[in-house]
Amino acid sequence: MSDDFCLDLKVRDYECDLQGVVNNAVYQNYLEHARHEFLLARGLDFAALAAQGVFPVVVRAELDFKRSLRPGDEFRVTVRCEMEGRIRVIFWQEIHRREGDLALMARIVATVLDSRGRPKIPEGLIEKLVGNRR
Amino acid sequence: MSDDFCLDLKVRDYECDLQGVVNNAVYQNYLEHARHEFLLARGLDFAALAAQGVFPVVVRAELDFKRSLRPGDEFRVTVRCEMEGRIRVIFWQEIHRREGDLALMARIVATVLDSRGRPKIPEGLIEKLVGNRR
Amino acid sequence: MSDDFCLDLKVRDYECDLQGVVNNAVYQNYLEHARHEFLLARGLDFAALAAQGVFPVVVRAELDFKRSLRPGDEFRVTVRCEMEGRIRVIFWQEIHRREGDLALMARIVATVLDSRGRPKIPEGLIEKLVGNRR
Amino acid sequence: MSDDFCLDLKVRDYECDLQGVVNNAVYQNYLEHARHEFLLARGLDFAALAAQGVFPVVVRAELDFKRSLRPGDEFRVTVRCEMEGRIRVIFWQEIHRREGDLALMARIVATVLDSRGRPKIPEGLIEKLVGNRR
Repeated sequence: MSDDFCLDLKVRDYECDLQGVVNNAVYQNYLEHARHEFLLARGLDFAALAAQGVFPVVVRAELDFKRSLRPGDEFRVTVRCEMEGRIRVIFWQEIHRREGDLALMARIVATVLDSRGRPKIPEGLIEKLVGNRR
Repeated sequence: MSDDFCLDLKVRDYECDLQGVVNNAVYQNYLEHARHEFLLARGLDFAALAAQGVFPVVVRAELDFKRSLRPGDEFRVTVRCEMEGRIRVIFWQEIHRREGDLALMARIVATVLDSRGRPKIPEGLIEKLVGNRR
Repeated sequence: MSDDFCLDLKVRDYECDLQGVVNNAVYQNYLEHARHEFLLARGLDFAALAAQGVFPVVVRAELDFKRSLRPGDEFRVTVRCEMEGRIRVIFWQEIHRREGDLALMARIVATVLDSRGRPKIPEGLIEKLVGNRR
Repeated sequence: MSDDFCLDLKVRDYECDLQGVVNNAVYQNYLEHARHEFLLARGLDFAALAAQGVFPVVVRAELDFKRSLRPGDEFRVTVRCEMEGRIRVIFWQEIHRREGDLALMARIVATVLDSRGRPKIPEGLIEKLVGNRR
């Protein structure tokens, strides 16, 4: 399993809904952005991959909402990833408020589709994602 | 378990991302909107509930992404709900393209918080949600 | 100038922010969606145009916010369009609540870029947009 | 007129649409977030104001889209503000890519509504916004 990656962000008011807290769907935005920054840190550019006919896709998302983020909250999104067999990548992600309490835990199952829509993760990509620690 | 509720929608181009398909987070928007319309059809207005200190919240979401929705796609979001014990509501939701194929399956676990943040679902609300079929 | 086109929509709760009304940025989503549906009604598919190297772009937007839309509001978005010279299209758009009062007025200036990024509106496209009424 | 305020941000992939660039509506998100951070730097908390019955609202937005932001772009949002009469605040905002070129210019006209919905900007608020330089 790869080392942790983390990204520090701050709630933007437009992300909050009429309950006065961050809307549930926005957490998926945060998680996706952190995964893409994680990929970038490993030399994998999401937009460039798409242009090459390599399409990372999420096939399942499990999200546990523990505590709502509020206007002004600063928080950290973490990413750990591991391979599950040859065609699935599992991203374990958490969001913690800067004060430390857990806002969300997630398990995101992803794969990579080739230009014909078939799951296939190029070997070089696996190396970059998880190194030798499979 | 309650009868099915369904809502017909159409993909809006701004909901699509640089892969040319509906962004993953947007499905949670669709699911939430369908649940709120379902509540409304049972006489429960989400905004009015919040004003009364009754806060429905999602505690867990499980989303299986089966096939991407694309620009122009028309689709149906379905909602079935059932109680799990006294303080949890399970929403089973699916999104099907109008042509029939399944785009997404979801299991959404919700509860209701009172104004002190404690889980408590008012009895009248349960009646409206699931009728006598608990 | 072309005839009016209109599209009926309903506010979705997730579009509302912590002031309890539709967030300002969301009106641009409504306006864009109505323009794309307007184009489609004239045989112009936005996603297909992009695939052909024809990129409609907004160069200026003027938005007058008259009255906030609220949760549950049903509303109509209208579109009128006219050419201004050979490379600019002006979209006049309004949003009215179903009860009749005006929520927003907008003047959107658009052009079309070719694959090299230069403004150029194909002649056939102008015919479809505004007919003979230039 | 007040001094410039600036906020550095980075494009998130989910903010990009099927043209592969940041969607037009998202710029309003950027501008709003920068204005709220600007207010905060002057001791004005948007969420707290709303709770006190003081509702800043945008009445007109003029946006000139100069060049699209793309995936991975880093950019700066600037804010200058001045009073226009006693009940209008004008925000002049620009977005520049880190490389220096201008992506967007905006003139945002705002006012403040009291709890009855009437425009009224509390005097203390004006001091914080523009100091002595009216």
